[in-house]
Amino acid sequence: MINLNYPHFPFTREVLIEKVQEKISDKRFQHVLRVEKKALELAEKYQLDFEKVSIAALVHDYAKEVSDEEFQQIIKEKHLDQDLLKWSNAIWHGVVGQYVIEKELGISDKEILQAVNHHTTGSKNMSDLDKVIYVADFIEDGRDFPGVNEARESANRSLDEGVLFETKHTLLYLINKQSPIHPKTLETYNYYVANKRDI
Amino acid sequence: MINLNYPHFPFTREVLIEKVQEKISDKRFQHVLRVEKKALELAEKYQLDFEKVSIAALVHDYAKEVSDEEFQQIIKEKHLDQDLLKWSNAIWHGVVGQYVIEKELGISDKEILQAVNHHTTGSKNMSDLDKVIYVADFIEDGRDFPGVNEARESANRSLDEGVLFETKHTLLYLINKQSPIHPKTLETYNYYVANKRDI
Repeated sequence: MINLNYPHFPFTREVLIEKVQEKISDKRFQHVLRVEKKALELAEKYQLDFEKVSIAALVHDYAKEVSDEEFQQIIKEKHLDQDLLKWSNAIWHGVVGQYVIEKELGISDKEILQAVNHHTTGSKNMSDLDKVIYVADFIEDGRDFPGVNEARESANRSLDEGVLFETKHTLLYLINKQSPIHPKTLETYNYYVANKRDI
Repeated sequence: MINLNYPHFPFTREVLIEKVQEKISDKRFQHVLRVEKKALELAEKYQLDFEKVSIAALVHDYAKEVSDEEFQQIIKEKHLDQDLLKWSNAIWHGVVGQYVIEKELGISDKEILQAVNHHTTGSKNMSDLDKVIYVADFIEDGRDFPGVNEARESANRSLDEGVLFETKHTLLYLINKQSPIHPKTLETYNYYVANKRDI
């Protein structure tokens, strides 16, 4: 069991976990706990703040089971980019989910909300916290897809390698399924490809 | 040998061919002739105007051996989207190449220039002429890559199926090579994926 305090937040890890557990299915909740475990491993390796990593990991899928109608309403009410209306839960639970998290959990920390925002599409402007959540979501111990070991090795070499591997893998998966691809996913790919000599 | 007149243009096919042959390597010229042959087959099948198909096919790679410096100069002089400067010959020879063709060959027909423009990235707004050139370039008789037969069968079912197959294949190829992908290629993919129920 992880023993972790949140000295800078007005709630404990136990209370946050309870709220997350109430909001999503047990299967998803188990995934969330595994993402937190992997994210903390990466945080230790790459020397990130455990507190924010834990919180961001625990809430990253908090809005995954929010209804399409609620997301559409938030997009309209908050005057977000109306192009978002063309997308679906796979994009909304991160990009729009951050507003659900802010409202229902009272988390207003911009770095945590950005990690939630970026965790599905990636971004060309990812912080290390964003990268840790993006990558941990992909390689947590329950993941079992062809290439997962290579993904884990990439993330062990560097966060940027982990991000590039995951972004490529996601693009290939979506194209083979003939699913739509969000322009930000391509932007992430192009950014990390252009900078791969530095990786 | 193809016997084709250009009643609406102030030059003959023979003169156009001579000019193209002077501008590019023999290997590329042979590819261009095969693209024209395939494009005319598709034009017959899908009932397009032979004249424009022939001209667009013959000029589609006219600017392929133009120097990077010349492309960069045109982008600046014509005040094209300056984002283009970040790309390379693979994009420029179509998107910017149309201006070289207009200037050097005196071809101002907007439909032909658009087919040249769209032949590398595709577009969500492709005319049938654009599609024929895009697809013929991919499946001409000299092409020999894994999947080329499937690509030819797609194009035989419909131009839209041909475009979707080619766009998917191009994306997969670029991702596996870790090469940058132009946003218009993704836009083409997303458009044809969204409309695939009609294909």
